[in-house]
Amino acid sequence: MRIGFLGPAGTFSEQALLSEPSVPPDAELVPLATVHQVVVAVASGDVDRALAPIENSLEGSVNEAVDALVHDAHGVRIVGERVLPVRYSLLARPGVAMQDVRVVLSHPQGLAQCAAWLRDTLPAAEVRARTSTAESVREVAATDDVWAALGTPLAGDLYGAVTIAEDLGDEPANATRFVWLAREGDTLGDGGADWKTSVVFSGDGDGSPGWLVRCLSEFAFRGVNLTRIESRPARRRLGHYVFLLDFTGRADEPGPTADAIAALSAHCEELRVLGSYPRAAGAPKP
Amino acid sequence: MRIGFLGPAGTFSEQALLSEPSVPPDAELVPLATVHQVVVAVASGDVDRALAPIENSLEGSVNEAVDALVHDAHGVRIVGERVLPVRYSLLARPGVAMQDVRVVLSHPQGLAQCAAWLRDTLPAAEVRARTSTAESVREVAATDDVWAALGTPLAGDLYGAVTIAEDLGDEPANATRFVWLAREGDTLGDGGADWKTSVVFSGDGDGSPGWLVRCLSEFAFRGVNLTRIESRPARRRLGHYVFLLDFTGRADEPGPTADAIAALSAHCEELRVLGSYPRAAGAPKP
Repeated sequence: MRIGFLGPAGTFSEQALLSEPSVPPDAELVPLATVHQVVVAVASGDVDRALAPIENSLEGSVNEAVDALVHDAHGVRIVGERVLPVRYSLLARPGVAMQDVRVVLSHPQGLAQCAAWLRDTLPAAEVRARTSTAESVREVAATDDVWAALGTPLAGDLYGAVTIAEDLGDEPANATRFVWLAREGDTLGDGGADWKTSVVFSGDGDGSPGWLVRCLSEFAFRGVNLTRIESRPARRRLGHYVFLLDFTGRADEPGPTADAIAALSAHCEELRVLGSYPRAAGAPKP
Repeated sequence: MRIGFLGPAGTFSEQALLSEPSVPPDAELVPLATVHQVVVAVASGDVDRALAPIENSLEGSVNEAVDALVHDAHGVRIVGERVLPVRYSLLARPGVAMQDVRVVLSHPQGLAQCAAWLRDTLPAAEVRARTSTAESVREVAATDDVWAALGTPLAGDLYGAVTIAEDLGDEPANATRFVWLAREGDTLGDGGADWKTSVVFSGDGDGSPGWLVRCLSEFAFRGVNLTRIESRPARRRLGHYVFLLDFTGRADEPGPTADAIAALSAHCEELRVLGSYPRAAGAPKP
């Protein structure tokens, strides 16, 4: 089995995979360059499954993952979710002292999640965005400049950087929710009492409060609780959106959740079930 | 008057300012390093006004601007909005041919907005994120490597790079909405028939569909149309959100809009009016 993740080696995504009991010991872990590629590789069959970051408690949706699911990977389903705490380490070449650091690299979410700490601790340092935390660590290990990166100790071990500050992040409750992706028909095989369903929908009335109220009322009326609502651009022009909902229950069993989805579809131009899957420990409760 | 924008010189934000009739000829344009700093500089009084990107038709909310308004700049108000079309140019050192380009730099939104074009035209090129389009152009003009940047011809003129492809972007309708920010009590002084209001709100019931339906119903019931709904993390833990709404009408005049806001506040722990301002040409219509 080939399992895709956001590479290179040493990212938070790889750290999440390594702590994952459902990964078979003989699985091949396939690092991919962007979150978009992680999602699309499942659709194309390049990998069998993938673990993709979808939401962070501070930064919100990982838009690249959401947009790839909505626009570019119609056959891909969410088959599971995991929630992992996120703490950053500041890493640099051996010998670099924190007070000398002039430039700090990280993924934009890492820079955002440590923004207050950076402003307080390294007010003169310039921040520069890179495509992943691991890429940032690799770059600071290789440069001759006095740079540091926000990333994982795992990346430091891989690329030869050392930790000069740890347990960073502006909010102690910082956590990232990942989703397991697979092609339609595949399942992760783990059970669970609490199920969730994710859908994406859009309609002609997407600018009207009456329309969205009618859509959400189908859930309220049946006692189906939302855990998340999100709007993303429909990619036509400003003011046109698609909406993503997460809510309790299963789409594939008779009951209020399946009834609410059927009723919602009557209001929509497009409605797609992204998947039903067991709620992870630490995931938002209704 | 000091006016803040996302620098360095040559960004889309500066291009937007230079096309802006409401900027006095003697205004001092102040480049700031991040969108967060642009918003916070208004709150602190470092600048009198600022123009900040808030939403793009492809990439959605500019989260850094939204989160700064919600969490870090309580005294700042939206006093106007502008919508500008976004087309990218590919720039490089003089002499670089497109087929030789190995690395493409840009702001993450530029890379995302030209993603399909890059995959088709430069499939072997590596993409690397930088903090602004102008910073990317500055870097490719200075490097000895065969790199290119997605940015503006204005930045090319400033830093010594030339355009090797133009009018790029995956969707011809690509546009960015900017907001004018000022401290409470200041106005932009331009009129307009269509007014909009932006609010941010949160409540105890933010995980329940019934709660959000009740909130939105206050607008539907009074015929006040939404132009946008957005959820952002409340920064406590996963599953807690604040909601941003844009809708028609003015908060500061008696009428259905002011009534809907008063009714909404009864459902909320926190409700803040971010501003009422004339709708821009090209902005979403209800």
